[in-house]
Amino acid sequence: MPPSFRYRLERQPPRKGAGGVTRGASVREFPASRGLAGVSMRLAPGSMRELHWHANAAEWAYVVSGFCRTTILHPEGGAATDTFGPGDVWYFPRGWGHSIQGIGPGECHFILIFDNGDFSEDHTFSVTDWLSRTPPEAVAQNLGLGPAEVALLPKGEAYFVRGPAPDDRSSDATARARPELVTTHRYPLGAQQPRRVPGGGTQRTVTVAEFPISTTMSGSLLEIEPGAMRELHWHPDADEWQYYLEGEAEMIVFLAQGQAVREEFEAGDVGYAPMGAGHYIRNAGSGLLRVLIGFNSGRYLANDLSAWMASNPPDVLAANLGLPPAVVEKLPKRESFMTPARSGGPG
Amino acid sequence: MPPSFRYRLERQPPRKGAGGVTRGASVREFPASRGLAGVSMRLAPGSMRELHWHANAAEWAYVVSGFCRTTILHPEGGAATDTFGPGDVWYFPRGWGHSIQGIGPGECHFILIFDNGDFSEDHTFSVTDWLSRTPPEAVAQNLGLGPAEVALLPKGEAYFVRGPAPDDRSSDATARARPELVTTHRYPLGAQQPRRVPGGGTQRTVTVAEFPISTTMSGSLLEIEPGAMRELHWHPDADEWQYYLEGEAEMIVFLAQGQAVREEFEAGDVGYAPMGAGHYIRNAGSGLLRVLIGFNSGRYLANDLSAWMASNPPDVLAANLGLPPAVVEKLPKRESFMTPARSGGPG
Amino acid sequence: MPPSFRYRLERQPPRKGAGGVTRGASVREFPASRGLAGVSMRLAPGSMRELHWHANAAEWAYVVSGFCRTTILHPEGGAATDTFGPGDVWYFPRGWGHSIQGIGPGECHFILIFDNGDFSEDHTFSVTDWLSRTPPEAVAQNLGLGPAEVALLPKGEAYFVRGPAPDDRSSDATARARPELVTTHRYPLGAQQPRRVPGGGTQRTVTVAEFPISTTMSGSLLEIEPGAMRELHWHPDADEWQYYLEGEAEMIVFLAQGQAVREEFEAGDVGYAPMGAGHYIRNAGSGLLRVLIGFNSGRYLANDLSAWMASNPPDVLAANLGLPPAVVEKLPKRESFMTPARSGGPG
Repeated sequence: MPPSFRYRLERQPPRKGAGGVTRGASVREFPASRGLAGVSMRLAPGSMRELHWHANAAEWAYVVSGFCRTTILHPEGGAATDTFGPGDVWYFPRGWGHSIQGIGPGECHFILIFDNGDFSEDHTFSVTDWLSRTPPEAVAQNLGLGPAEVALLPKGEAYFVRGPAPDDRSSDATARARPELVTTHRYPLGAQQPRRVPGGGTQRTVTVAEFPISTTMSGSLLEIEPGAMRELHWHPDADEWQYYLEGEAEMIVFLAQGQAVREEFEAGDVGYAPMGAGHYIRNAGSGLLRVLIGFNSGRYLANDLSAWMASNPPDVLAANLGLPPAVVEKLPKRESFMTPARSGGPG
Repeated sequence: MPPSFRYRLERQPPRKGAGGVTRGASVREFPASRGLAGVSMRLAPGSMRELHWHANAAEWAYVVSGFCRTTILHPEGGAATDTFGPGDVWYFPRGWGHSIQGIGPGECHFILIFDNGDFSEDHTFSVTDWLSRTPPEAVAQNLGLGPAEVALLPKGEAYFVRGPAPDDRSSDATARARPELVTTHRYPLGAQQPRRVPGGGTQRTVTVAEFPISTTMSGSLLEIEPGAMRELHWHPDADEWQYYLEGEAEMIVFLAQGQAVREEFEAGDVGYAPMGAGHYIRNAGSGLLRVLIGFNSGRYLANDLSAWMASNPPDVLAANLGLPPAVVEKLPKRESFMTPARSGGPG
Repeated sequence: MPPSFRYRLERQPPRKGAGGVTRGASVREFPASRGLAGVSMRLAPGSMRELHWHANAAEWAYVVSGFCRTTILHPEGGAATDTFGPGDVWYFPRGWGHSIQGIGPGECHFILIFDNGDFSEDHTFSVTDWLSRTPPEAVAQNLGLGPAEVALLPKGEAYFVRGPAPDDRSSDATARARPELVTTHRYPLGAQQPRRVPGGGTQRTVTVAEFPISTTMSGSLLEIEPGAMRELHWHPDADEWQYYLEGEAEMIVFLAQGQAVREEFEAGDVGYAPMGAGHYIRNAGSGLLRVLIGFNSGRYLANDLSAWMASNPPDVLAANLGLPPAVVEKLPKRESFMTPARSGGPG
């Protein structure tokens, strides 16, 4: 039996602490999602997901609302501190140490996507866990502290911690001599002029071409009008992980050998389409549908049904689909990408 | 116990339909073939392997006889239509949608090789299967058709379909403004001047160097004279999948730890040599031996026994092989590659 | 329960023969070592590890003592013969045929590291095993020998063989027209000016940047002063395989989720730190500690705790570690890398 391609992420009980709230979906909770995993996290002002790293996955993130600040160490030398707002994307390579802190005003909500479905807490290493499992003498020697000072460190993993919301003083370390639109780790996806199909919707996409460090992942933000659909398509070299931001949707995932799975989504749900599997997403509601999508490839490649039809000689289509020439003539002559709702009856 | 390295592909019952005949060998039918799989397919004039894609493998093909036309969609934009005749090779990257149609005169016979032993129908997606598992309203919206027109589409997977053999009119989509020898997806391997060893045989090889799109696969066409052999060798970075086109052969595959497997082949058999395993192919018949070979690497690399002998100082060979200097002197001084039949008795 | 990260390699019973002695550690003997395997081998003058290849791993080696000569065939054409002494490193790509022979004076001791924990004799192919499992007629045809000469070849795998120690005459094949410091397969790591921390120790490192053929592996030689430590760090993209050459050490491997494993080492022991796992190595003895390290990545990347502390704004550290500003001020302001022993009491 085919697996389910929906996981109701925001309905799960969260992990909470020190102003932070997190819900995760890996291949253990969501068996279909073998190639990608994800987390929805919320941080109050000053609340911090402490310094940590992921041993087996890179992290691609999208800020839904609010503002946060990240720090990251570069293993080849150097470091970066960046601030993020709604619509911004970050990418942290596998194994690089980083922190994320809400800077207010209000809560910061972001979606983390990982390029390994087996991502888990077992593969996530926090600095306080590390230091508390290291003999105090070694910590003292490494950090240049005395025993009394080492004794002040947390006795176990903090995971979430809370400090003052960062202000200008705390940002001294992030002096920036000139303005920058795209930095090493930050891409303002929301500021991009989207690909647009009138009546259909929009797509904002960021790949390794625009955001060079993101060699293993890319992502899109889709907006689909009521009744319209992101047409039938498949991705030849990537799995797709979806987070439904707003609206109602249906997706059908085609698995070959006569198998197809239909799923319905609402805001807060996660969806998945495996590499090579045909699928489409239709706005099944009355308002705008907004979906965040992450791929486990730095490139974005898609084969759209309309482009496929348009690229074949008419006799191939006639023979393959068993259609008379007059109907073949009506088949798409160019890529649709987004298909507006149909206005009337039979064409 | 070592596995068998032979599978009698052309003796298997075929899948048939609408002028098409196909026989396949994956790791399920032929357990040794973990890195590559293959198919022998025949299409009558006008018969088409319908629009489809493979989710987990690239496709490398060689036309044995007859003529066919392929269409393929490029996920980054564009498309290609090419015609193929005997000796021509094509390469379609993993997940790209394509069709193949016999154009006559006569049947077209070709061998498909896939860079994944786990290739199967489960990972093969056909357009008619897809459309028939999609709600008619969505198909109508995507293709711009009315309900009555959608109702004309096939009710399940067609797999093979048959139309008129393509003629000049149907090729309008493939207008070609200037002649081309190598195109994106087509390489005329049979037209290549082969590497040749007088009395031994010939090798035609196409790699990513000559055929840039074929990044994950390469292939060879070997012709070996009666009694001659493609000498003892191994490939350091690729598995090898063989289709015996003509003649009779023996191969011994050496698996280390004292294990070796001897196989006999005739036309229509498939052979396999795993990455790193020593092997040789000898023409055991009285006519020419012709073998098609596919590798799951874009490069062609081989270590030949004669070249190995020739590259070592005499004292290494004397000590390693326990041979007196006079015999070491007779060992090969340069690469043989193809070893002609011996004309007499002891040398 | 976490696995052990220590294997007492030099205490194991060896495989011996013809002046050669070898002890190996793969994932079967040392379950933690999934990404890398290793061998300690000793060759008397003239003793040779015969012509062979490894089907599933590249080989990176470090000469501990004595001298040897290697031969290797290039599958794209050409070959190389090199001589090695203490401190020299070689790299042979996966599947390339090679031999190693002691040239005296005295025994040659070297450590082989493989980029696959599943490396084993099953994947190691020797020329005598190969020829003895091939029909004599085929050997005769391939090598241009007569039956009586073929009958002189070994009847099974030799593995170790012994000949005269190579002298100038036998090296004729390795004529070298001009002096070379780094050759295709040889890098004199011991001759490198090391990275040095006064009071802490030294590190010599060779990566694909200095040694272009070593695309899949890199290595280091660490010298650590008594009481000093290679500070807390992790490698984001490589597993680490250690051979303790001299002295006494302790290592703690941090595995997240509150788990850490402490191991003690002496000369002849092997250690392992998985990709992404935090660890440090401390000289726990009274003399110099010397450790050879191999990584299964051509690049060397490390995240050091001191650099991580130094790269974060003070407010991040204060909030994350729960420390008052006066203590945060004492945290490292630059990377330590090697941390000298502490001279007194509380800082």
